[in-house]
Amino acid sequence: MGRRIVIAVDEGEESLHALTWCLKNVILPSASAQESSSGGDEGDVLVLVYARPPRLYYPAMDGTGYIFSTDIITSMENYANELAKSVIAKAEMVCAEYPNVKVETKVKDGDPRDVICDMVDKLGADMLVVGSHGYGPIKRAFLGSVSSHCAQNVKCPVLIVKRPKS
Amino acid sequence: MGRRIVIAVDEGEESLHALTWCLKNVILPSASAQESSSGGDEGDVLVLVYARPPRLYYPAMDGTGYIFSTDIITSMENYANELAKSVIAKAEMVCAEYPNVKVETKVKDGDPRDVICDMVDKLGADMLVVGSHGYGPIKRAFLGSVSSHCAQNVKCPVLIVKRPKS
Repeated sequence: MGRRIVIAVDEGEESLHALTWCLKNVILPSASAQESSSGGDEGDVLVLVYARPPRLYYPAMDGTGYIFSTDIITSMENYANELAKSVIAKAEMVCAEYPNVKVETKVKDGDPRDVICDMVDKLGADMLVVGSHGYGPIKRAFLGSVSSHCAQNVKCPVLIVKRPKS
Repeated sequence: MGRRIVIAVDEGEESLHALTWCLKNVILPSASAQESSSGGDEGDVLVLVYARPPRLYYPAMDGTGYIFSTDIITSMENYANELAKSVIAKAEMVCAEYPNVKVETKVKDGDPRDVICDMVDKLGADMLVVGSHGYGPIKRAFLGSVSSHCAQNVKCPVLIVKRPKS
């Protein structure tokens, strides 16, 4: 009976705020050990989804004539991996305050809009939660608003959580 | 401690679906009589908001030279009032299945986008719930998407509930 709720996480404060709000206001925890007499463990499953930027296309030579060495490429990819780990670790730390909530994590390469919509579809999610400024001001300028794209394209209810200005 | 959750209702099936989904998935009912030992009655308050089309401007004579009689104007206004009553009655019937949920209703004249955003602001709502096709295909064509307008303009989290296609 538990619902499967997908939440998009990224390195921005907005997504951490959305996660916290969602844990406080939406997620039903599973029955704790003491209350398990009813048999079924019917809490929601919270699925953290992180879209890792896809392996970039590095031209052999950029406009300034500078050639990317293999070392630099490797270190950029390492950075992307470390960032993914750190985003997930931070989100899991927030979830750890709610020990009776079942949490899964999914990391996938690609455009966040596609990754999120595909994951919602694939998992048959009951609800999608996104921060309103899903991907920070710079990325957002290039990507368009992730939240409005998702609201238009997924089939399930979408909760858009805004970060309070204070 | 109860939250104040605003839901936009109208004559469309989408808004009834959103209301039902919200009652099932989001609203925390207040403690029933048996459980009131804790003292506080901490359930959510669900506020049904309906925007009644504003009193139209009737030109004395339309393009075809036809003059609206006072009777016609009166009957159009009566229709708007009856529609408002019927929308609210339908929504209240849905809510009646959840007797422990506190429900308030607000009917206000105006463009739904303004009425909803103003009401959320005025009530300091904790969440706004809207159907994805807030106002039917014809009205939507004139009004633009109510749900996306609200998602951009209110400060609180916004839940957009889509009607399943099946």
